[in-house]
Amino acid sequence: MSQTPRVVEVRKNVLKQNDILARALRDRFREAGVFVVNVVSSPGAGKTTLLEHTLTDLQSRYRTASVVGDLATENDARRLARSGALVEQITTGTVCHLDATMIERVIDGWDLTDLDFLFIENVGNLVCPASYDLGENLRFVLMSVTEGEDKPLKYPTIFNSADVAVITKADIADAVEFDWETACNNIQAVRPGMQTLRVSAKTGAGMPDYVGVVESHRSQMRDTTLAPSPARA
Amino acid sequence: MSQTPRVVEVRKNVLKQNDILARALRDRFREAGVFVVNVVSSPGAGKTTLLEHTLTDLQSRYRTASVVGDLATENDARRLARSGALVEQITTGTVCHLDATMIERVIDGWDLTDLDFLFIENVGNLVCPASYDLGENLRFVLMSVTEGEDKPLKYPTIFNSADVAVITKADIADAVEFDWETACNNIQAVRPGMQTLRVSAKTGAGMPDYVGVVESHRSQMRDTTLAPSPARA
Repeated sequence: MSQTPRVVEVRKNVLKQNDILARALRDRFREAGVFVVNVVSSPGAGKTTLLEHTLTDLQSRYRTASVVGDLATENDARRLARSGALVEQITTGTVCHLDATMIERVIDGWDLTDLDFLFIENVGNLVCPASYDLGENLRFVLMSVTEGEDKPLKYPTIFNSADVAVITKADIADAVEFDWETACNNIQAVRPGMQTLRVSAKTGAGMPDYVGVVESHRSQMRDTTLAPSPARA
Repeated sequence: MSQTPRVVEVRKNVLKQNDILARALRDRFREAGVFVVNVVSSPGAGKTTLLEHTLTDLQSRYRTASVVGDLATENDARRLARSGALVEQITTGTVCHLDATMIERVIDGWDLTDLDFLFIENVGNLVCPASYDLGENLRFVLMSVTEGEDKPLKYPTIFNSADVAVITKADIADAVEFDWETACNNIQAVRPGMQTLRVSAKTGAGMPDYVGVVESHRSQMRDTTLAPSPARA
């Protein structure tokens, strides 16, 4: 007898529970005035490197923190902590994504009103994280030029669930014969109108635009929904 | 109330069911004399490109087939079919891995004694496929030089469950400043003694050695456990 129907039912309940908790988290973040970004991608697409640069840049003007998800090791948290931001690692063991419960646990005891930005680096995976709302305001999906132009077509759910696509490692696009037009067309085919950025954390190309987009999304959110936050200390 | 204990219990049952079916598949493959390779990696590590070259090379000397798993699209099956091998696509929807039931279904009606090799290209994911035995004789885990040297440490389960590590895209190793020694040390730290190959499907570097390894694993298996297969037609 197939186990499939029971698994599907349990999975739906888990997702429903996650959605309820994620909504509560989003309310807490809004009330505290912290803007939350969930960064998803496959392993090795450059999430940690991009976040290192993001935190280092924003740290001079904002109060930032980061939560990092990995199956094992605390390497990424150590890398990100060099920026001076508050960083916490979540090790998930064999779980292929972060969920709202993990986020709730890790921020337990934090004074969220002390923060302007919280960046969540999800587990490297283009499938599972798509289904788990973490209460974020903005979801970035990263794809590196080395992964090929077809990833949006092959992993449509994660592109559909994200707000902004960031194409990383632009510096080696020529070396891997990356076809920008095809890649962008594939993103638009899956999610028409999706904002798409090109960056190289290594050369810095596209980074000011990318940081500007992060800040502008926070400003838009603050203008419409966020409560006023205390002035930066 | 947390749903976690119930999910874990259901997951264990599913994995147990999968293991039972995978064992039966392995028996069928052995009796038919077909050698089965399960190829796992993150999205964009080069599974399809490596398999295109593998099938094209082996096709002149063996009867080969391939099963390709993706969430969406039949692009990879079309690419692999150019080799002349029998190719079937499995589209998994939102499921992050292939399982033994999917393999059993897709080979329904095949005369396995017509085959020497069956290559299974798993869904691009360094987490979920680790737990699902597909009845294969050999599991290859691919990592591309662009993903960074730390992937074995961060995704230990998939490296532990695989037999051979294949480091791909060697042609751009210098461009991405890939540190071979650190990467190989990390593989050995997670899985001491693991056979590790370096290839570039683009330049052909390492490809003869890699194909030789595939053939030699089949020969070893045939010498010890496989039933004699009919002579190639």
